[in-house]
Amino acid sequence: MAKVAAGPEIERLIQLLARLPGLGPRSARRAALALVKKKEQLLGPLATALAETRDAILTCETCGNIDTQSPCTLCRDPARDRSLICVVEEMGDLWALERAGVLNGLYHVLGGTLSPLDGVGPDDLSIGKLIERARDPGVKEVLLALNATVEGQSTAHYLMDQLVGCSVAVSRLAHGVPIGGELDYLDEGTLAAAVKARKSM
Amino acid sequence: MAKVAAGPEIERLIQLLARLPGLGPRSARRAALALVKKKEQLLGPLATALAETRDAILTCETCGNIDTQSPCTLCRDPARDRSLICVVEEMGDLWALERAGVLNGLYHVLGGTLSPLDGVGPDDLSIGKLIERARDPGVKEVLLALNATVEGQSTAHYLMDQLVGCSVAVSRLAHGVPIGGELDYLDEGTLAAAVKARKSM
Repeated sequence: MAKVAAGPEIERLIQLLARLPGLGPRSARRAALALVKKKEQLLGPLATALAETRDAILTCETCGNIDTQSPCTLCRDPARDRSLICVVEEMGDLWALERAGVLNGLYHVLGGTLSPLDGVGPDDLSIGKLIERARDPGVKEVLLALNATVEGQSTAHYLMDQLVGCSVAVSRLAHGVPIGGELDYLDEGTLAAAVKARKSM
Repeated sequence: MAKVAAGPEIERLIQLLARLPGLGPRSARRAALALVKKKEQLLGPLATALAETRDAILTCETCGNIDTQSPCTLCRDPARDRSLICVVEEMGDLWALERAGVLNGLYHVLGGTLSPLDGVGPDDLSIGKLIERARDPGVKEVLLALNATVEGQSTAHYLMDQLVGCSVAVSRLAHGVPIGGELDYLDEGTLAAAVKARKSM
Protein backbone atom coordinates (compact mmCIF):
# COMPACT_ATOMS: atom_id res chain seq x y z
CA MET A 1 0.00 0.00 0.00
CA ALA A 2 1.19 3.48 -0.84
CA LYS A 3 2.40 5.43 2.15
CA VAL A 4 0.15 8.24 3.31
CA ALA A 5 1.33 11.50 4.73
CA ALA A 6 0.13 10.74 8.23
CA GLY A 7 1.30 9.15 11.46
CA PRO A 8 1.82 5.41 12.01
CA GLU A 9 -1.49 5.15 13.93
CA ILE A 10 -3.46 6.26 10.86
CA GLU A 11 -1.51 3.94 8.56
CA ARG A 12 -2.21 1.00 10.87
CA LEU A 13 -5.90 1.98 10.92
CA ILE A 14 -6.02 2.00 7.11
CA GLN A 15 -4.39 -1.44 6.94
CA LEU A 16 -6.95 -2.89 9.35
CA LEU A 17 -9.92 -1.24 7.61
CA ALA A 18 -8.71 -2.72 4.31
CA ARG A 19 -9.21 -6.19 5.81
CA LEU A 20 -12.96 -5.67 6.20
CA PRO A 21 -15.06 -7.31 3.50
CA GLY A 22 -16.15 -4.76 0.90
CA LEU A 23 -13.27 -2.37 1.58
CA GLY A 24 -10.10 -2.39 -0.53
CA PRO A 25 -6.97 -0.27 0.03
CA ARG A 26 -8.54 2.72 -1.70
CA SER A 27 -11.87 2.69 0.12
CA ALA A 28 -10.10 1.95 3.42
CA ARG A 29 -8.16 5.18 2.91
CA ARG A 30 -11.38 7.07 2.21
CA ALA A 31 -12.96 5.55 5.33
CA ALA A 32 -9.94 6.50 7.46
CA LEU A 33 -10.10 10.02 6.07
CA ALA A 34 -13.79 10.29 6.96
CA LEU A 35 -12.98 8.98 10.44
CA VAL A 36 -10.19 11.45 11.21
CA LYS A 37 -12.24 14.30 9.78
CA LYS A 38 -15.26 13.40 11.93
CA LYS A 39 -13.38 12.65 15.12
CA GLU A 40 -16.20 13.49 17.53
CA GLN A 41 -19.17 12.20 15.54
CA LEU A 42 -17.68 9.02 14.05
CA LEU A 43 -14.16 8.05 15.13
CA GLY A 44 -14.81 8.25 18.86
CA PRO A 45 -18.19 6.45 18.83
CA LEU A 46 -16.87 3.72 16.51
CA ALA A 47 -13.83 3.14 18.75
CA THR A 48 -16.17 2.83 21.74
CA ALA A 49 -18.63 0.56 19.90
CA LEU A 50 -15.83 -1.77 18.81
CA ALA A 51 -14.34 -1.95 22.29
CA GLU A 52 -17.77 -2.62 23.81
CA THR A 53 -18.50 -5.32 21.23
CA ARG A 54 -15.09 -6.90 21.82
CA ASP A 55 -15.75 -7.06 25.55
CA ALA A 56 -19.40 -8.12 25.33
CA ILE A 57 -19.68 -10.81 22.65
CA LEU A 58 -20.05 -14.44 23.62
CA THR A 59 -20.72 -17.59 21.64
CA CYS A 60 -24.06 -19.11 22.72
CA GLU A 61 -23.27 -22.46 24.36
CA THR A 62 -26.50 -23.93 22.99
CA CYS A 63 -26.74 -22.90 19.34
CA GLY A 64 -23.36 -21.29 18.49
CA ASN A 65 -24.85 -17.88 17.66
CA ILE A 66 -22.79 -14.87 18.71
CA ASP A 67 -24.54 -12.56 21.14
CA THR A 68 -23.86 -10.63 24.30
CA GLN A 69 -25.40 -13.31 26.49
CA SER A 70 -25.30 -17.12 26.57
CA PRO A 71 -27.76 -18.73 26.00
CA CYS A 72 -28.39 -16.14 23.30
CA THR A 73 -31.44 -13.89 22.85
CA LEU A 74 -33.01 -16.34 20.41
CA CYS A 75 -32.49 -19.42 22.60
CA ARG A 76 -33.97 -17.56 25.60
CA ASP A 77 -37.00 -16.21 23.75
CA PRO A 78 -40.07 -17.99 25.18
CA ALA A 79 -42.08 -17.11 22.04
CA ARG A 80 -39.86 -19.29 19.85
CA ASP A 81 -41.03 -22.70 18.66
CA ARG A 82 -38.73 -25.15 20.45
CA SER A 83 -39.81 -28.10 18.29
CA LEU A 84 -37.90 -26.82 15.22
CA ILE A 85 -34.12 -26.51 14.94
CA CYS A 86 -32.80 -24.81 11.82
CA VAL A 87 -29.19 -25.81 11.08
CA VAL A 88 -27.04 -23.19 9.30
CA GLU A 89 -23.39 -23.10 8.29
CA GLU A 90 -22.46 -19.67 9.58
CA MET A 91 -23.88 -16.90 11.70
CA GLY A 92 -24.39 -14.78 8.58
CA ASP A 93 -26.92 -17.35 7.36
CA LEU A 94 -28.75 -17.10 10.70
CA TRP A 95 -28.84 -13.30 10.39
CA ALA A 96 -30.17 -13.59 6.83
CA LEU A 97 -33.02 -15.92 7.89
CA GLU A 98 -33.84 -13.70 10.87
CA ARG A 99 -33.94 -10.62 8.63
CA ALA A 100 -36.38 -12.42 6.38
CA GLY A 101 -38.39 -13.28 9.51
CA VAL A 102 -39.56 -16.55 7.97
CA LEU A 103 -38.75 -18.90 10.79
CA ASN A 104 -39.90 -18.98 14.38
CA GLY A 105 -37.82 -21.93 15.55
CA LEU A 106 -34.38 -22.18 17.13
CA TYR A 107 -31.08 -22.29 15.27
CA HIS A 108 -27.90 -24.33 15.32
CA VAL A 109 -24.73 -22.84 13.84
CA LEU A 110 -22.42 -25.59 12.55
CA GLY A 111 -19.43 -23.31 12.09
CA GLY A 112 -18.71 -24.37 8.50
CA THR A 113 -19.03 -27.42 6.27
CA LEU A 114 -17.22 -30.74 6.11
CA SER A 115 -14.20 -30.40 3.88
CA PRO A 116 -11.77 -33.34 4.03
CA LEU A 117 -9.34 -31.58 1.65
CA ASP A 118 -9.08 -28.63 4.04
CA GLY A 119 -8.86 -30.97 7.03
CA VAL A 120 -12.32 -30.05 8.34
CA GLY A 121 -13.87 -33.23 9.81
CA PRO A 122 -17.04 -33.85 11.84
CA ASP A 123 -15.21 -33.06 15.08
CA ASP A 124 -14.39 -29.55 13.85
CA LEU A 125 -18.06 -28.66 13.46
CA SER A 126 -20.73 -28.41 16.13
CA ILE A 127 -22.30 -31.76 15.16
CA GLY A 128 -22.22 -33.66 18.46
CA LYS A 129 -24.05 -30.80 20.13
CA LEU A 130 -26.69 -30.84 17.34
CA ILE A 131 -27.35 -34.59 17.78
CA GLU A 132 -27.65 -34.03 21.53
CA ARG A 133 -30.19 -31.23 20.96
CA ALA A 134 -32.11 -33.31 18.40
CA ARG A 135 -32.50 -36.13 20.97
CA ASP A 136 -34.61 -33.84 23.16
CA PRO A 137 -38.15 -35.28 22.91
CA GLY A 138 -39.54 -31.77 22.43
CA VAL A 139 -37.75 -31.40 19.08
CA LYS A 140 -39.89 -32.57 16.16
CA GLU A 141 -38.06 -31.23 13.09
CA VAL A 142 -34.51 -30.39 12.04
CA LEU A 143 -34.34 -28.13 8.98
CA LEU A 144 -30.95 -28.35 7.26
CA ALA A 145 -30.67 -24.80 5.84
CA LEU A 146 -27.17 -25.29 4.42
CA ASN A 147 -25.93 -23.54 1.30
CA ALA A 148 -26.84 -25.16 -2.01
CA THR A 149 -23.16 -25.82 -2.73
CA VAL A 150 -21.33 -29.15 -3.04
CA GLU A 151 -19.87 -28.71 0.47
CA GLY A 152 -23.18 -27.63 1.98
CA GLN A 153 -25.10 -30.52 0.42
CA SER A 154 -22.55 -33.20 1.31
CA THR A 155 -22.56 -31.89 4.90
CA ALA A 156 -26.37 -32.07 4.85
CA HIS A 157 -26.21 -35.72 3.75
CA TYR A 158 -23.74 -36.52 6.51
CA LEU A 159 -26.03 -34.85 9.08
CA MET A 160 -29.05 -36.75 7.75
CA ASP A 161 -27.20 -40.04 8.39
CA GLN A 162 -26.25 -38.91 11.90
CA LEU A 163 -29.83 -37.87 12.70
CA VAL A 164 -31.34 -41.26 11.77
CA GLY A 165 -31.30 -42.40 15.41
CA CYS A 166 -33.19 -39.34 16.64
CA SER A 167 -36.95 -39.31 16.27
CA VAL A 168 -37.09 -36.07 14.31
CA ALA A 169 -38.25 -35.18 10.81
CA VAL A 170 -35.31 -33.90 8.74
CA SER A 171 -36.04 -31.33 6.03
CA ARG A 172 -34.11 -29.08 3.67
CA LEU A 173 -34.86 -25.77 1.93
CA ALA A 174 -36.65 -25.96 -1.42
CA HIS A 175 -34.64 -25.40 -4.60
CA GLY A 176 -36.02 -23.34 -7.46
CA VAL A 177 -36.09 -20.03 -9.26
CA PRO A 178 -35.33 -17.11 -6.86
CA ILE A 179 -38.17 -14.58 -6.59
CA GLY A 180 -37.42 -11.87 -9.16
CA GLY A 181 -34.95 -14.18 -10.91
CA GLU A 182 -34.78 -14.25 -14.71
CA LEU A 183 -34.54 -17.69 -16.30
CA ASP A 184 -31.96 -16.47 -18.79
CA TYR A 185 -29.49 -15.78 -15.99
CA LEU A 186 -29.99 -19.00 -14.02
CA ASP A 187 -27.69 -22.01 -14.19
CA GLU A 188 -28.85 -25.38 -15.53
CA GLY A 189 -28.84 -26.96 -12.06
CA THR A 190 -31.34 -24.45 -10.69
CA LEU A 191 -33.55 -24.73 -13.76
CA ALA A 192 -33.50 -28.53 -13.54
CA ALA A 193 -34.45 -28.37 -9.84
CA ALA A 194 -37.24 -25.89 -10.56
CA VAL A 195 -38.70 -28.04 -13.33
CA LYS A 196 -38.46 -31.22 -11.28
CA ALA A 197 -40.22 -29.62 -8.30
CA ARG A 198 -42.86 -27.85 -10.41
CA LYS A 199 -46.22 -27.18 -8.74
CA SER A 200 -49.65 -27.50 -10.31
CA MET A 201 -51.53 -24.21 -10.47
CA MET B 1 -32.32 -1.03 9.11
CA ALA B 2 -33.58 -4.57 9.66
CA LYS B 3 -32.98 -5.87 13.15
CA VAL B 4 -30.30 -8.51 13.49
CA ALA B 5 -30.40 -11.39 15.89
CA ALA B 6 -27.64 -10.03 18.09
CA GLY B 7 -27.09 -7.81 21.09
CA PRO B 8 -27.45 -4.01 21.13
CA GLU B 9 -23.66 -3.55 21.00
CA ILE B 10 -23.47 -5.31 17.62
CA GLU B 11 -26.45 -3.36 16.27
CA ARG B 12 -24.83 -0.09 17.29
CA LEU B 13 -21.58 -1.20 15.63
CA ILE B 14 -23.43 -1.94 12.38
CA GLN B 15 -25.10 1.49 12.43
CA LEU B 16 -21.75 3.23 12.85
CA LEU B 17 -20.00 1.15 10.19
CA ALA B 18 -22.81 2.03 7.76
CA ARG B 19 -21.81 5.69 8.09
CA LEU B 20 -18.36 5.06 6.60
CA PRO B 21 -18.04 6.05 2.93
CA GLY B 22 -18.29 3.00 0.70
CA LEU B 23 -20.28 0.94 3.20
CA GLY B 24 -24.07 0.71 3.07
CA PRO B 25 -26.36 -1.08 5.53
CA ARG B 26 -25.75 -4.43 3.86
CA SER B 27 -21.97 -4.24 3.66
CA ALA B 28 -21.83 -2.79 7.18
CA ARG B 29 -23.56 -5.95 8.37
CA ARG B 30 -21.08 -8.11 6.48
CA ALA B 31 -18.22 -6.11 7.98
CA ALA B 32 -19.66 -6.48 11.50
CA LEU B 33 -20.04 -10.20 10.93
CA ALA B 34 -16.40 -10.49 9.82
CA LEU B 35 -15.39 -8.51 12.91
CA VAL B 36 -17.25 -10.65 15.45
CA LYS B 37 -16.07 -13.83 13.74
CA LYS B 38 -12.44 -12.69 13.82
CA LYS B 39 -12.46 -11.27 17.32
CA GLU B 40 -8.76 -11.79 18.05
CA GLN B 41 -7.29 -11.04 14.62
CA LEU B 42 -9.50 -8.12 13.54
CA LEU B 43 -12.03 -6.78 16.06
CA GLY B 44 -9.53 -6.34 18.90
CA PRO B 45 -6.76 -4.74 16.80
CA LEU B 46 -9.22 -2.42 15.02
CA ALA B 47 -10.71 -1.26 18.34
CA THR B 48 -7.19 -0.54 19.58
CA ALA B 49 -6.14 1.23 16.36
CA LEU B 50 -9.23 3.46 16.44
CA ALA B 51 -8.73 4.36 20.09
CA GLU B 52 -5.05 5.12 19.46
CA THR B 53 -5.88 7.25 16.43
CA ARG B 54 -8.59 9.09 18.37
CA ASP B 55 -6.12 9.89 21.13
CA ALA B 56 -3.16 10.70 18.87
CA ILE B 57 -4.44 12.81 15.97
CA LEU B 58 -3.78 16.53 15.91
CA THR B 59 -4.35 19.22 13.30
CA CYS B 60 -1.01 20.70 12.22
CA GLU B 61 -0.96 24.33 13.36
CA THR B 62 1.04 25.33 10.29
CA CYS B 63 -0.59 23.61 7.31
CA GLY B 64 -3.84 22.10 8.62
CA ASN B 65 -2.84 18.50 7.81
CA ILE B 66 -3.94 15.87 10.32
CA ASP B 67 -1.09 13.95 11.90
CA THR B 68 0.02 12.68 15.26
CA GLN B 69 2.34 15.62 15.80
CA SER B 70 2.13 19.36 15.20
CA PRO B 71 3.87 20.72 13.15
CA CYS B 72 3.15 17.62 11.07
CA THR B 73 5.65 15.15 9.57
CA LEU B 74 5.64 17.02 6.25
CA CYS B 75 6.17 20.47 7.77
CA ARG B 76 9.05 19.11 9.90
CA ASP B 77 10.77 17.25 7.07
CA PRO B 78 14.07 19.07 6.34
CA ALA B 79 14.24 17.50 2.86
CA ARG B 80 11.11 19.39 1.74
CA ASP B 81 11.35 22.43 -0.52
CA ARG B 82 10.19 25.30 1.71
CA SER B 83 9.89 27.72 -1.22
CA LEU B 84 6.73 26.04 -2.58
CA ILE B 85 3.35 25.93 -0.83
CA CYS B 86 0.69 23.75 -2.46
CA VAL B 87 -2.83 24.82 -1.43
CA VAL B 88 -5.46 22.05 -1.33
CA GLU B 89 -9.12 21.97 -0.30
CA GLU B 90 -9.11 18.90 1.90
CA MET B 91 -6.69 16.50 3.48
CA GLY B 92 -7.76 13.81 1.02
CA ASP B 93 -6.30 15.95 -1.78
CA LEU B 94 -3.02 16.23 0.13
CA TRP B 95 -2.94 12.44 0.54
CA ALA B 96 -3.62 11.98 -3.18
CA LEU B 97 -0.74 14.29 -4.18
CA GLU B 98 1.59 12.61 -1.68
CA ARG B 99 0.67 9.18 -3.03
CA ALA B 100 1.53 10.38 -6.51
CA GLY B 101 4.82 11.67 -5.07
CA VAL B 102 4.89 14.51 -7.56
CA LEU B 103 5.53 17.41 -5.23
CA ASN B 104 8.35 18.05 -2.82
CA GLY B 105 7.04 21.30 -1.33
CA LEU B 106 4.88 22.04 1.70
CA TYR B 107 1.09 22.02 1.80
CA HIS B 108 -1.70 24.22 3.06
CA VAL B 109 -5.12 22.69 3.72
CA LEU B 110 -7.90 25.28 3.31
CA GLY B 111 -10.60 23.12 4.87
CA GLY B 112 -13.08 23.58 2.02
CA THR B 113 -14.07 26.13 -0.60
CA LEU B 114 -15.84 29.46 -0.44
CA SER B 115 -19.57 28.91 -0.72
CA PRO B 116 -21.71 31.96 0.11
CA LEU B 117 -24.93 29.93 -0.32
CA ASP B 118 -23.81 27.51 2.39
CA GLY B 119 -22.57 30.35 4.56
CA VAL B 120 -18.88 29.50 4.07
CA GLY B 121 -16.95 32.78 3.89
CA PRO B 122 -13.21 33.57 3.87
CA ASP B 123 -13.10 33.51 7.68
CA ASP B 124 -14.28 29.89 7.74
CA LEU B 125 -11.29 28.73 5.70
CA SER B 126 -7.62 28.80 6.63
CA ILE B 127 -6.90 31.83 4.39
CA GLY B 128 -5.36 34.30 6.86
CA LYS B 129 -2.82 31.69 7.85
CA LEU B 130 -1.98 31.07 4.17
CA ILE B 131 -1.34 34.78 3.48
CA GLU B 132 0.85 34.89 6.59
CA ARG B 133 2.86 31.90 5.34
CA ALA B 134 3.13 33.37 1.83
CA ARG B 135 4.65 36.58 3.26
CA ASP B 136 7.68 34.58 4.46
CA PRO B 137 10.52 35.74 2.17
CA GLY B 138 11.64 32.11 1.73
CA VAL B 139 8.39 31.27 -0.11
CA LYS B 140 8.68 31.73 -3.89
CA GLU B 141 5.61 29.97 -5.27
CA VAL B 142 2.05 29.18 -4.19
CA LEU B 143 0.44 26.39 -6.24
CA LEU B 144 -3.38 26.50 -6.02
CA ALA B 145 -4.19 22.78 -6.40
CA LEU B 146 -7.94 23.20 -5.90
CA ASN B 147 -10.53 20.99 -7.54
CA ALA B 148 -11.49 21.92 -11.11
CA THR B 149 -15.05 22.64 -9.96
CA VAL B 150 -16.91 25.96 -9.92
CA GLU B 151 -16.37 26.27 -6.15
CA GLY B 152 -12.71 25.30 -6.37
CA GLN B 153 -11.97 27.72 -9.18
CA SER B 154 -13.81 30.67 -7.66
CA THR B 155 -11.94 30.06 -4.39
CA ALA B 156 -8.69 29.99 -6.41
CA HIS B 157 -9.54 33.38 -7.94
CA TYR B 158 -10.28 34.83 -4.51
CA LEU B 159 -6.94 33.50 -3.20
CA MET B 160 -5.11 34.95 -6.22
CA ASP B 161 -6.50 38.40 -5.36
CA GLN B 162 -5.46 38.01 -1.72
CA LEU B 163 -1.94 36.93 -2.67
CA VAL B 164 -1.26 39.98 -4.85
CA GLY B 165 0.53 41.78 -2.00
CA CYS B 166 2.91 38.89 -1.35
CA SER B 167 5.96 38.56 -3.57
CA VAL B 168 5.18 35.01 -4.67
CA ALA B 169 4.43 33.42 -8.02
CA VAL B 170 0.91 31.96 -8.03
CA SER B 171 0.25 28.90 -10.20
CA ARG B 172 -2.51 26.38 -10.79
CA LEU B 173 -2.62 22.75 -11.99
CA ALA B 174 -2.77 22.20 -15.76
CA HIS B 175 -6.10 21.20 -17.28
CA GLY B 176 -6.30 18.60 -20.03
CA VAL B 177 -7.02 15.00 -20.95
CA PRO B 178 -6.32 12.62 -18.01
CA ILE B 179 -3.65 10.00 -18.75
CA GLY B 180 -5.48 6.92 -20.02
CA GLY B 181 -8.59 9.02 -20.66
CA GLU B 182 -10.68 8.43 -23.76
CA LEU B 183 -11.82 11.54 -25.62
CA ASP B 184 -15.26 10.07 -26.21
CA TYR B 185 -15.93 10.02 -22.45
CA LEU B 186 -14.63 13.50 -21.66
CA ASP B 187 -16.80 16.57 -21.19
CA GLU B 188 -16.62 19.56 -23.52
CA GLY B 189 -14.92 21.74 -20.90
CA THR B 190 -11.98 19.38 -20.55
CA LEU B 191 -11.65 18.97 -24.30
CA ALA B 192 -11.73 22.74 -24.81
CA ALA B 193 -9.03 23.19 -22.15
CA ALA B 194 -6.89 20.46 -23.70
CA VAL B 195 -7.14 21.99 -27.20
CA LYS B 196 -6.43 25.49 -25.94
CA ALA B 197 -3.33 24.36 -24.03
CA ARG B 198 -2.07 22.09 -26.83
CA LYS B 199 1.68 21.49 -27.01
CA SER B 200 3.84 21.30 -30.12
CA MET B 201 5.48 17.90 -30.56
